[in-house]
Amino acid sequence: MSIDILIDKIKEKNNPSVVGLDPRIEYVPQYIRDTFYNEFGKSLEGAAQAILEFNIKLIDALWDVIPAVKPQSAYYEMYGIEGLKVLHETIRYAQSKGLYVITDVKRNDIGSTAEAYAAAYLGKTEIEDMQIDAFGSDGITINPYLGTDGIQPFIDACSQYQKSAFVLVKTSNKSSGEIQDLVVHNETIYEKVAQLVNEWGKSSMGQKGYSHIGAVVGATYPQQAAKLRALMPNAYFLVPGYGAQGGTAKDVANCFNADGLGAIVNSSRGIICAYMKAQCSEQDFALAAREAAIRMREEISSSLE
Amino acid sequence: MSIDILIDKIKEKNNPSVVGLDPRIEYVPQYIRDTFYNEFGKSLEGAAQAILEFNIKLIDALWDVIPAVKPQSAYYEMYGIEGLKVLHETIRYAQSKGLYVITDVKRNDIGSTAEAYAAAYLGKTEIEDMQIDAFGSDGITINPYLGTDGIQPFIDACSQYQKSAFVLVKTSNKSSGEIQDLVVHNETIYEKVAQLVNEWGKSSMGQKGYSHIGAVVGATYPQQAAKLRALMPNAYFLVPGYGAQGGTAKDVANCFNADGLGAIVNSSRGIICAYMKAQCSEQDFALAAREAAIRMREEISSSLE
Repeated sequence: MSIDILIDKIKEKNNPSVVGLDPRIEYVPQYIRDTFYNEFGKSLEGAAQAILEFNIKLIDALWDVIPAVKPQSAYYEMYGIEGLKVLHETIRYAQSKGLYVITDVKRNDIGSTAEAYAAAYLGKTEIEDMQIDAFGSDGITINPYLGTDGIQPFIDACSQYQKSAFVLVKTSNKSSGEIQDLVVHNETIYEKVAQLVNEWGKSSMGQKGYSHIGAVVGATYPQQAAKLRALMPNAYFLVPGYGAQGGTAKDVANCFNADGLGAIVNSSRGIICAYMKAQCSEQDFALAAREAAIRMREEISSSLE
Repeated sequence: MSIDILIDKIKEKNNPSVVGLDPRIEYVPQYIRDTFYNEFGKSLEGAAQAILEFNIKLIDALWDVIPAVKPQSAYYEMYGIEGLKVLHETIRYAQSKGLYVITDVKRNDIGSTAEAYAAAYLGKTEIEDMQIDAFGSDGITINPYLGTDGIQPFIDACSQYQKSAFVLVKTSNKSSGEIQDLVVHNETIYEKVAQLVNEWGKSSMGQKGYSHIGAVVGATYPQQAAKLRALMPNAYFLVPGYGAQGGTAKDVANCFNADGLGAIVNSSRGIICAYMKAQCSEQDFALAAREAAIRMREEISSSLE
C-alpha cells in the first residue's frame, strides 16, 4: 500500500481527508457501552469491545466517502492488551473495506530499535524462516528527534513493503514552537527537519511524483505550511488540527500542491463525535459522522478551487 | 513508585544500573525457542512465549543484583498482541520481584493524546466510575519534540501516581546530533531541551532532591553529559549506550552528581546476550547475565570512586 495507493484512493473518492479513529470510551454512545459492559463487565475488555463496535459502525458509514482512516494508538494502548487487540482488528476491518490505514504511533528510537518498530507496523517480523505481519498497517507517523539512523529503518521498510511514513515536522499543538520554532542560522528547527525529510524521501519515491516519506504539518499553522510545501515538494503532508483543534479549510489550502494533491487532512473528534454536536439521537452517531465527513470533503474541495 | 523508590532500590542494591529487556527472538537460546515453537508453533505466540520464559529466567537471576529493568516496547510490539501480552506480564513479574520497571516507549503527542499515553503507562484508565491500570509501569521514556503541552500530562501523572518519566535530551545514537546538536544563540537544542526538562521537573519533585521528571542522556557523549549534569541538577539521568553501543564506565561518570546519585546506566545486549560472548552453554544464559551484571556494577562503582 504505497503512497501511490493512497493517492489513487484520494482521487477515487475525490476527497483528500482522513478520519482519525481516536475513540475514548466517553465518545462511544451510552447504549453501545451498556451492551458491552453487560457482556464483558465495566472493564478494559468491556470498554475495548464497545470501542470496536463504535469503530466498525463508523467505518461502515464512512468507507465509501473517505480514502483513509488514522487510528491513534494512544487511545487503544490506554485500554491495555484489550485495547491493542481492538487496534489490530480496526486496522484489518478498515483495510477489508478498502481504506488506507495510517496508524498514528509517532514512534522513534535508535536504529536497531527503530528496525523493530518498522517490523511491527510496516514490515514483517522474522521468526526463524517465517515472515509474519504483526500489525500490518499501511502507513505510520514517526518522530525525527533522533536523526537519520532512527529514521532509516522506516525508509527501508517503506521501500521494501511499499508503505508510507509521515515524519513530525510542524505539529498542530500550541507549544509546538518551543523546540520546533527555535532558529538556527535564520532557519527554524521545523525547516531543518523539513530539509531532512526532503532528503530522506528521495530514496523511497513512489510512481506519481510523491515519496513514501511524508510529513506531519499542523493545520493550525498555515503560514508555516506554505514554506514547508516549498521545502518538501515531493512529500505528502498529513495535516492534523482541522476542526476541533481550530484549523479551517482555508488554513489547509497551503498544504496542497498546485496539482490539488500533496496533502491529506485529518479530523478526529469533528467526525467521530459529530453526533454530540448535531444533537441527534445517539443511535444516529454513524450517520452524523457520515454527514460531517461529507461536509468536510466539500469544505476542503471549495477551498482548493 | 516515585523516583524516591528508584533511589532507595539503587542504594539498597548499591548498583546504579538497569538491565534493558530487549529480547529479539534471535537472542533467546535455541532450546527455549524450540520448546515454545513445539507448544505454540513458529508463530507470534510461540516467539512471544519463548521471550517471556527468557525474561522470567533473566529476572530470576538478576533481581537481587539490580534495582530496575527497562523493557524496550519495540521488541514486544514487533510480536504483535502476543508480544504486548508478554510486555505486560514482564512488567508485572519484574515488579513482583521488587524491581522498578521503566518501560521504554518514547511516547509523544499533543496534550489530549499524551493524556491517553500517560493513562496507559503511568496513571489509570477511567471506565465510567472505575479506574484501572492498563500497563502499570513505574516509569517511562518520553520525547520532547512537541513541547510543554505534550509533556504536561506525563508530569501530572508522575505527581498524582508517584511515577517517573525520562525525557529524551541527548540520545546515544550516532546521528543524534543532526537535530539535537543544532545551535541556537550559542546553545544546542539538547541544552535548550535540558532547560525545559529542568523547568518541567520543578513541579514534580520527590523527597530526596530529585524530580520525577528525568532525562535520557547517552553514555556515548560524555562531554555533553557533564554540561547536562550542570543544567539539570535535580533530574535523574537514564543513561543508554553502555556496553554494546560503546559507552564505558568512565564515560558515564559525568552523568552522576557528587552524591554518587543522579544516574542509572542501562545495558541491554551486554547483559541479556552475555552468554553468546562468554561462549558458555546456552543453558547457562541466565548465569552469564548475572555475572555480566555484577561485572557492570563493579565497573561503574570503580569509576565513581
